[in-house]
Amino acid sequence: MDVAVEAIGLVAGAMTTSAFIPQAWKTWRSGSARDFSLALLVLLVLGNTLWFGYGVMKGSTGLVVANLITVPLTCFILWVKLRRG
Amino acid sequence: MDVAVEAIGLVAGAMTTSAFIPQAWKTWRSGSARDFSLALLVLLVLGNTLWFGYGVMKGSTGLVVANLITVPLTCFILWVKLRRG
Repeated sequence: MDVAVEAIGLVAGAMTTSAFIPQAWKTWRSGSARDFSLALLVLLVLGNTLWFGYGVMKGSTGLVVANLITVPLTCFILWVKLRRG
Repeated sequence: MDVAVEAIGLVAGAMTTSAFIPQAWKTWRSGSARDFSLALLVLLVLGNTLWFGYGVMKGSTGLVVANLITVPLTCFILWVKLRRG
């Protein structure tokens, strides 16, 4: 049972992490992040950076890898938001 | 040390969860989710629903509460995206 539960966690992590790849691609092509709330992006960058730190301290490879992907992609969207409004 | 580490996890979870509240509010007022990638929203809804299930199975109140907030808010943004493009 525990292996199945951990598998669900891995799939969930893969989904919520990979979700930002098509988003970063769309933002790169459109050059617009107008519909994004600045608060969402700032809280996600800060929160996921903390999740990264938490993962390092807990020795959780999943959290470290997931947030190594998510944080830079969210930073990019935040950069577009700050530059283009 | 462990209490401090868990506190970081709680703050990280509070940030990445509460981030969707100002976003849902902005989407509600603007009625636009054009800059969102459909794939981002679908993957976040599915992924966070799995995180919710994972939280139930692991007995993690934090994961259950966080995703009880995040999933409906992301569903709302997805609904606006599907209705308005």
